[in-house]
Formats: sequence, C-alpha cells, structure tokens
Amino acid sequence: MNKKVIGIIGGMGPLATADLFQKIVLHTEAACDQEHLRVCIDSNTNIADRTAALLHGGANPVPEMVKSAQRLASIGAEVLIMPCNTAHNFYDEVAASVDLPVLQMIALTRDALGKKGVTCAGLLATDGTVQTGIYQRTFAGSGIELLVPEGDDQAAVMDIIYNGVKAGDMNHDVAAFRRTCENLLARGAEVLILGCTELPPAFELYHLDYPNVDPTLELALGAIRFAGGQIKD
Amino acid sequence: MNKKVIGIIGGMGPLATADLFQKIVLHTEAACDQEHLRVCIDSNTNIADRTAALLHGGANPVPEMVKSAQRLASIGAEVLIMPCNTAHNFYDEVAASVDLPVLQMIALTRDALGKKGVTCAGLLATDGTVQTGIYQRTFAGSGIELLVPEGDDQAAVMDIIYNGVKAGDMNHDVAAFRRTCENLLARGAEVLILGCTELPPAFELYHLDYPNVDPTLELALGAIRFAGGQIKD
Repeated sequence: MNKKVIGIIGGMGPLATADLFQKIVLHTEAACDQEHLRVCIDSNTNIADRTAALLHGGANPVPEMVKSAQRLASIGAEVLIMPCNTAHNFYDEVAASVDLPVLQMIALTRDALGKKGVTCAGLLATDGTVQTGIYQRTFAGSGIELLVPEGDDQAAVMDIIYNGVKAGDMNHDVAAFRRTCENLLARGAEVLILGCTELPPAFELYHLDYPNVDPTLELALGAIRFAGGQIKD
Repeated sequence: MNKKVIGIIGGMGPLATADLFQKIVLHTEAACDQEHLRVCIDSNTNIADRTAALLHGGANPVPEMVKSAQRLASIGAEVLIMPCNTAHNFYDEVAASVDLPVLQMIALTRDALGKKGVTCAGLLATDGTVQTGIYQRTFAGSGIELLVPEGDDQAAVMDIIYNGVKAGDMNHDVAAFRRTCENLLARGAEVLILGCTELPPAFELYHLDYPNVDPTLELALGAIRFAGGQIKD
C-alpha cells in the first residue's frame, strides 16, 4: 500500500509529457481512481532546447530542469522521470539537485531490448542525442549494436520532430522520414528505437508503422514498477 | 508575453486528467516547446470519489482537492482548473482555499452550447452530477433545455464510467450505453453533453460517435485563452 508518488519533469516537449502520463495511467492495474498512482507533473516550457544547448551554444536547460525537480519534490514526488532522451545528457546535474531517485530512460530501454533478444537496433533521435553518444555509452557492453541514420537521413528525423510534432503540423510531409526508417531496417536493424519522446506521438499522428521500441513506454512501465504499482496486462 | 501558468487539480480520474492536458497542448498555437504554456498537474488519486460523497455518505473529497490546489499554487500556478464535472459541486470550497482564479467547466460548456445555438441537449453524467442539479442550476436562464436519461438508462452511464473507463476495461460492453445515447437523441437532444470527464476518453476507446459537446475541450480552450495563449485553428 506504500506507493511512491511519481514526479514528471515535463515540457520537453509538452506532447511527449502528455504521452508519458497517459501511458502510466493506461498501463497501471487499477479498478478505480483511488487505486491509481499519484503523479505530479511540471510541464515546464521554460526549459531551453536541449539539442541547441548541446551542439549550438544555446541556453543551458539545466537551471529550469532543476527548478522543476525541486518543485516536484516540494509537493511530494518520491521518484522523478524525464520524458526527453536528449535531456538525459544533463541527468547527473538534475539527479544531484534533489534527494530523490531519478529513473534513467535510456538504460530502461536498453534492458527492455536485451530482454527481447534484440541484437541490432536503429536509433531515431535528435542530433543532440545522436552526436553526444549517450545511447552508445548506455548500450556499451550490452551486446546490442546501434545503427544511426546515414547521409541526409538524420535531417529527416530532426524535421519530423521539430517541424512536425513540436510545431503541431498535423499534415506534415513524412516521406523522407519513411525512407530513413526503411534504410535503417534494410541495413539490419531489427527494431527502431523511438529515441526522441516526440516520436511515439509522431508514429500515431502520421500513421507510421515500423517495428519499434518506445522508450517512453519503457519509462512509464519502469516508473509504475518503481512506485509499487502493478502493470496491467 | 505575460502568459499565466495553468494548474490542473487532477486524478478525478487520471485518464480524464491526461485527456485535458493533451487537449491543452494540441489546441495551443505554438511553433516549439518554449511557446507552449507551462502547465502543472497534481493527479491526486487520494481525492475521494465525488459521487459517493454527494449521494452515499462517502469520504469528503474536499481536503485533498484543497491540498492539490495549494500545492499547485505553491509551485507557480496562476489559474486552476478541475477536469471533473462532479467535483464542481465543491467548487466554492476549493476556490475559497486559494488566492487564484478557478475556471468553471460547466459554465464554459453552457456558453459554448449557447454560441452554437443549441436549444436542447442531453446530459450524460454521473449520478452525483445529475442528482445534485449542478448542470441544471448552471444552465438556468440560458434558454438551453437539458434532458437526462430516463429509467434504467442512467445506470448505463454509471456503468461505462466506473466499470469501463475508470476500471480500464478496454473491451467493455457498451450496448446499454448506446441505447441511452440514442434515447436522448430520439427525445429531441441536438447534442449530448459528455458531462463526465471520463466520457470523452470513453467515446474514443469504444469508438462511439454521436453528436456531442466535450466539456473537457471547452475547459482546455477556456484555460488556454485565460492564460494568454492562442487557440490553434
């Protein structure tokens, strides 16, 4: 009965935050409102763009991420999660700012792929996530090979994330993104890692259907388990 | 540029809370994360059942609602919203507990129906909402007639809310609920008011398609406007 309160450092982006929250609710075994986990969210859209900070000298997102972490702690959160892969480059600074566990989405994704016996996965993620090598470091020694988009293909990933989902363009042209997915699969990827939290909503919005693993879902499941909830079959 | 921070007193239920949050994000005009509104949520599943409190001597939900309101105020919320129609029976006590405006979902719904020229609407809501007459009082003098389900039909509404959505039963039998909707329309309702915030997700989950007005959407639009955001066409 001693269930932990989940805190979500959100706004990176807002739709990804809603997606994570909904996945927590839908995957929790509960027969009524009161059996669900308490979840607190700060969808803090004052957090600066993570890729811009990592690669282009943009504003540092850490101070606002820390503010959110501390606000969530102040209203009772007992475990924190961040639905943004790129933000995990700042994981250490955020985790150090509060006296709470912060779950690691990319490690949860690695473990989920390992359990499924995947040996080669394609990484769909922002430039900030790909170029800082955070997936590569987290996957080192796991036996799972990571393929990243080649040539112009990476630009199509940035395009669907920034000009599609984040810009709220429901009719965005996703032909180039489709080619990126198909090229990764042709090179031997067994699944595509939706390594930016805007990509699960993108797959839904634009009706994309390639074999994939969803780090947002893995984070939701990891958070439910950590908080003492039961996963719904 | 002086946009207000929206606070959501949530958990009534959790899926309705996610639905409201997603509607705020999807209906805000924004080209990037940072142009979205900051939204704070306390999906507080310690709040007792509202209908049980109003009709069956159940635990009082107000103390936990007030806690959530005050927590949200403490982390910067500047306007509060509650995605639960039945909870609006406790509106005065919650509003008195914080020095912040609290938007009124049922009044926003009445105004939206008025603008659409609707003169007769069917009310789908919990026993707590129907029997306390909060819709009837809020609609008094608006020129909009309200029809409520007759005979056994109200039980089908409670069933889809509690045994369907709140219990997370994706394969729930909704035949009786369909008859309830069709009876209201046959009696002259031009639209159905989805007067429980679990009903918009129910319409999606169970692929229901009757002419309706969605108070959660009206609350999302009202909150975006009040916070100084722009509605996306």
